[in-house]
Amino acid sequence: MTKVISTITMSVDGCVAGPDQTLEEPLGRGGEQLHDWIVATKAWREAHGMDGGEDSADSRRLEKHLRTIGATIMGRRMFSGGAGPWAEDPNAASWFGDEPPFHHAVFVLTHHRRDPEVKEGGTTYTFVTDGIESALEQARAAADGRDVQVAGGAHVVQQYLAAGLLDEMEVHVAPLLLGGGVRLFDQLRSDPPKLEPLSVVESPAATHLRYRVVT
Amino acid sequence: MTKVISTITMSVDGCVAGPDQTLEEPLGRGGEQLHDWIVATKAWREAHGMDGGEDSADSRRLEKHLRTIGATIMGRRMFSGGAGPWAEDPNAASWFGDEPPFHHAVFVLTHHRRDPEVKEGGTTYTFVTDGIESALEQARAAADGRDVQVAGGAHVVQQYLAAGLLDEMEVHVAPLLLGGGVRLFDQLRSDPPKLEPLSVVESPAATHLRYRVVT
Repeated sequence: MTKVISTITMSVDGCVAGPDQTLEEPLGRGGEQLHDWIVATKAWREAHGMDGGEDSADSRRLEKHLRTIGATIMGRRMFSGGAGPWAEDPNAASWFGDEPPFHHAVFVLTHHRRDPEVKEGGTTYTFVTDGIESALEQARAAADGRDVQVAGGAHVVQQYLAAGLLDEMEVHVAPLLLGGGVRLFDQLRSDPPKLEPLSVVESPAATHLRYRVVT
Repeated sequence: MTKVISTITMSVDGCVAGPDQTLEEPLGRGGEQLHDWIVATKAWREAHGMDGGEDSADSRRLEKHLRTIGATIMGRRMFSGGAGPWAEDPNAASWFGDEPPFHHAVFVLTHHRRDPEVKEGGTTYTFVTDGIESALEQARAAADGRDVQVAGGAHVVQQYLAAGLLDEMEVHVAPLLLGGGVRLFDQLRSDPPKLEPLSVVESPAATHLRYRVVT
């Protein structure tokens, strides 16, 4: 049965992007380091059509996760690379490029209607303007029995969590402090859901915490 | 050589106390659950002069940590049980009771002069009014080669971190969301220190992350 899983990397101080996002640093000051763990992995490089990378605990965790995923949901800012004015063009290209690493259907939450895009390597982008439940319904259908991942950003994860639509959360804790920026957990309702620990995978590069969300 | 280690339990959403602290719930709504992991341990119960408890991974982690600690620093609110008006009396008794679990010298940061207190079981309280560096100097001397722990609350940990005085941070991540409250990492400077992962200990009750702070 399809599960809905959020998966996002956060700093030890709880941020998914650092302070002062700019065109040069769309993830804010220091935010690029959040993803050091993932870009080093064999699994990430393979998804990007690249050789090499480490067959590490991180890579095996990622590979195992990716095998289960049939569709991805993300916000418009994640799609087009950050929260700055450079990404405010409603038709801005995706920063995931012409051959995105997803290789499945991706549903982008946006306020602007936009035609679907078919990219190389099996990734399709569908732009969803009628809310998170619609996006999830479409993603479930596309996933065809596999799981749906909610990939970010923080505000999108918060919306799915608040709506009680997440079955599991995976938080990749990167070993760094950002000193501010975009918090993963913000604006939670005062009566948040319970969590049950499912697994911990550790490496020098990140600690991967997975929880079941009990609503 | 003495190391200075902060050690505190935080929710997955980064809080060390929940919202709406009251006399009945000095740790805020749901905050009591933060410490479910520790009160279940054999090591914690032994420190409190109680039998029983689980000889779990959590207990062994705690026991190993406690063996290294020769002195503790804490804030006045932690000492007297929360941030509410009930604890604002500068001479309020400690909520750790007449036989506190520390069994060593404890230095309490406060704005009010107060005579030292000698408790049963080897715990002494010294009230420090001239700042965090003075408290650390006194704690180092008292620790006599063992380590000094900065036990909280959040604001005290933040002050030691900002001043570059922490050698290590231990963050016990409890598997719950609090939906608000007192954040462990708040008001960090925009150029925070780097962290190096030292160890991860996991259990169903908590994930214990220890980092070296590289200043």
